[in-house]
Amino acid sequence: MTNPLERLVRVLARLPGIGRRTAERIAMRLAYRADDLLSELTSAMGEVKEKVGLCSLCGAVTTVDVNPCSLCVDNRRDQSVLCVVEDPGDVTALELAGGFTGRYHVLMGKISPMSGKGPWDLRLKELVERIDREQCRELVLALNTNTESDATVAFIRDLLKGRQVKITRLALGLPVGSGVSYSDPVTLERAMRGRQAV
Amino acid sequence: MTNPLERLVRVLARLPGIGRRTAERIAMRLAYRADDLLSELTSAMGEVKEKVGLCSLCGAVTTVDVNPCSLCVDNRRDQSVLCVVEDPGDVTALELAGGFTGRYHVLMGKISPMSGKGPWDLRLKELVERIDREQCRELVLALNTNTESDATVAFIRDLLKGRQVKITRLALGLPVGSGVSYSDPVTLERAMRGRQAV
Repeated sequence: MTNPLERLVRVLARLPGIGRRTAERIAMRLAYRADDLLSELTSAMGEVKEKVGLCSLCGAVTTVDVNPCSLCVDNRRDQSVLCVVEDPGDVTALELAGGFTGRYHVLMGKISPMSGKGPWDLRLKELVERIDREQCRELVLALNTNTESDATVAFIRDLLKGRQVKITRLALGLPVGSGVSYSDPVTLERAMRGRQAV
Repeated sequence: MTNPLERLVRVLARLPGIGRRTAERIAMRLAYRADDLLSELTSAMGEVKEKVGLCSLCGAVTTVDVNPCSLCVDNRRDQSVLCVVEDPGDVTALELAGGFTGRYHVLMGKISPMSGKGPWDLRLKELVERIDREQCRELVLALNTNTESDATVAFIRDLLKGRQVKITRLALGLPVGSGVSYSDPVTLERAMRGRQAV
């Protein structure tokens, strides 16, 4: 395989859900077809780079000209309930599932000593500020179900000790070891409905 | 989901092996992470667009400064045996499998009335010219195993009637309904060894 193709394969294989074999097939597909899917993909990626950003308030994905995002400025949503997620993609998954009418806060990851990520690399300072400013009554921790997320839950619970805020967590309707973005809407909706006090 | 992201998801979902769900996860991954995988991917795709092309002789993927490709100019390869494949990616799969020391000819598809592709949309004229010029003794048809490929085999057999060239086909060690690029190297190598007269 030629070197530019091999380089493309390696970058593609770093995308979620793409193995080495699929990356090879995609690279080949992009390399030789006359319909110029490569140009279309380049253009679509350029537009995302130019126009898509993160909401300065909640951290979810939004367009740069809509900031804070539409979820944050929607007055019909309950400002007293805040749903905390790890990644911006999780907001999309939960909105698709329905069953939640509050607002969101994206942590941008979880506590992960293995990859050198401590609590203060997350958007926790912003979380505490929002809880105080927005007089939040309930914090729903919609984190993934694995050990590192459990550590994050424990840290947040300790961090907020003494504040008048109820902390709940998604019901373990999620399969253990899996993640929010991977779950089907029905499972997510059940987990949201069955959320329980930590 | 924002419109530029939705556009990116739709382009991504047209890539082989990528469903709607995976496309959404990839788009999210590209949109928000600080490590700038998006820029790396854009750059790798740009390099492929600039430097990768098709061999003017066999039609396989090569770099634009190596044309004809390294397989075509390798004098150790048997010029009298020509392996005909549908797509450039099939050449890579067969080379990985080993067991073939001749040269290749890429048809760029197969006869497919459903998608309006007739015999003369393929590189068949070039194939006949090569057979005559290179005094080819054997033509190995390494096509996929489905009805459209069978029609292509039949067409090539009729087209070459009267010429002194033996036409063989990969042994049906390939699972019917699947394709060359999908098969593991061992299966491909067996199929190459067991090739039979049409």
